[in-house]
Amino acid sequence: MREKGRWAKLERIEKGRYDDKLSHCIRLHVSRGINMADSRRVLVVGGTHGNERTGVQLIRRFQANPQELERGSFKAETLLANELAIARNSRYLDQDLNRCFSDLLLNNKPENYEQSRAQEINKRFGPKGANSQTDWIIDLHTTTANMGVTLVVQQYNPMALDMALYVQQQMPDSVIFYEDNAADADPFLCSIAEHGLLIEVGPVAQGLLRGEVFEKTRMALSHALDYIDLQINGKVRLPSRREAEVYQFIEKLHLPLDENGEICGMIHPDLQDKDYQKLSPGEPIFILDTGETLLFEYPEAVHVAFVNEAAYYDQAHGLSLMRKRNLSWNG
Amino acid sequence: MREKGRWAKLERIEKGRYDDKLSHCIRLHVSRGINMADSRRVLVVGGTHGNERTGVQLIRRFQANPQELERGSFKAETLLANELAIARNSRYLDQDLNRCFSDLLLNNKPENYEQSRAQEINKRFGPKGANSQTDWIIDLHTTTANMGVTLVVQQYNPMALDMALYVQQQMPDSVIFYEDNAADADPFLCSIAEHGLLIEVGPVAQGLLRGEVFEKTRMALSHALDYIDLQINGKVRLPSRREAEVYQFIEKLHLPLDENGEICGMIHPDLQDKDYQKLSPGEPIFILDTGETLLFEYPEAVHVAFVNEAAYYDQAHGLSLMRKRNLSWNG
Repeated sequence: MREKGRWAKLERIEKGRYDDKLSHCIRLHVSRGINMADSRRVLVVGGTHGNERTGVQLIRRFQANPQELERGSFKAETLLANELAIARNSRYLDQDLNRCFSDLLLNNKPENYEQSRAQEINKRFGPKGANSQTDWIIDLHTTTANMGVTLVVQQYNPMALDMALYVQQQMPDSVIFYEDNAADADPFLCSIAEHGLLIEVGPVAQGLLRGEVFEKTRMALSHALDYIDLQINGKVRLPSRREAEVYQFIEKLHLPLDENGEICGMIHPDLQDKDYQKLSPGEPIFILDTGETLLFEYPEAVHVAFVNEAAYYDQAHGLSLMRKRNLSWNG
Repeated sequence: MREKGRWAKLERIEKGRYDDKLSHCIRLHVSRGINMADSRRVLVVGGTHGNERTGVQLIRRFQANPQELERGSFKAETLLANELAIARNSRYLDQDLNRCFSDLLLNNKPENYEQSRAQEINKRFGPKGANSQTDWIIDLHTTTANMGVTLVVQQYNPMALDMALYVQQQMPDSVIFYEDNAADADPFLCSIAEHGLLIEVGPVAQGLLRGEVFEKTRMALSHALDYIDLQINGKVRLPSRREAEVYQFIEKLHLPLDENGEICGMIHPDLQDKDYQKLSPGEPIFILDTGETLLFEYPEAVHVAFVNEAAYYDQAHGLSLMRKRNLSWNG
């Protein structure tokens, strides 16, 4: 068991010494340094979306072979997050579970299965906020988009960025996808731990296993666990001023819709599978059912991700626009 | 309206003149030749599987632009077959609709939505058997497997084979997939018409549109409709002894299963996306979750199709084994 009282005390002593957005993370970082010998609680999650089978199958493999999740300094636990959706091979029953770790956690009367399940998970592994029982959540996802190995950091969190950078060093084709969510507003499952990383691998159809996607996911997770072990032992080798090329989320764009709000077009073949490539104003973006090409109208050139993600058809979203930038932070 | 009585009479006169399995088809062929001026009832179907979005979207396009389905000699009708499954973006609700056009049509008390919907479709466009109102059904499907444009002929039917051969002449990369179902036992929607062709295009994830899959499907359908028009006008240019290379269905193989009957492996990466290629005994076929490779054990080399079709995970089927052969028939 980790010594919660001692940490709380350290945090109290340091309180007020930092006033920028880094304060919380640096504080934790410092306290972790002092508590190297503490055991860490690390959780690996699959099936947050019930039809993303790779994560589900990996969790089952780890449950049968728990030694794969052991490192010198910890043994990671496992969770199949949306059990009913997994059984139905659907993304969710009533609501996307991975959007329920928000104010909905405080709702006295959960309105559906996912809201109720989020509260259960939060109770078992959270609670969301400064006193979480869980140090790390690594959540395994897949996409129908051609995004390769994508390391999604959902909040500004130097340790999560360190983890992503470390994994990227081991898997140079992987990409860091950065969302600048405020901690309180972040609705993702990872947000109930002190640090989180979402590993998103594609392309693979929903409900399906592909060998190379399975293996890449397993490798990225394995490197992420190695990072935690190295970090606990003070052996991470990264420059004190970290720097990474990241893709920062701007917004999602709708697919073409007709006057009834029905989807009446699709991603243009020239853009299909071009995740993380540049899209400039005037280039083809959509093709209508009738064959007509629509061009991208936007004030700037951007990069693209989640190009033709099946799960986003629910809300008729066709792709995400991203800004490529250099992000730096202190280790 | 086509003169049903006259056809029936011709068939009666000719009855007994053929005793091989070609008799029915040749007889129809002859009678069609005589009735060239009759209008033909042609039905184009999408959404027999509710999450195969390409067909659904094409049908909606045709409903908005019916002139695309007109040829000199007929105007094809359209049908969205499994309406509730389309609304839910699922393959089916209770049972695969495309397996319900069998003895289930005779069931006085349909047991679920799909059985009831099959009876409704059979009443409107059948009935299955010698007296169908519908000459042709062309049913639009997609697959997650890398099968390109596949022209599925589900029974021995020379006119359907002619159509497939004609489409293949226009689209040389397309493949003829042949199943030798007995007419009565054939449970597919196409089987309620006198002739049918199922157009299966992939790879595309369920619930998703991809531009090139959409366009290939539209082109294959368009050539199929052209064939009907040419055939009615006696202008099909095919040798009197037709010959085609076809892939004939042998059987489906299960994915690796554990002692609880759960899937515990997947298609081996060396075999993934290799639809229609040869698989010889001793070659890798599956990889277990644990990383172990399983080799193909079979008495002969075969070809493969539906390699990693998401819809077949329900029954834990991993691929179909096919025999490549030359099929010949008389025009």
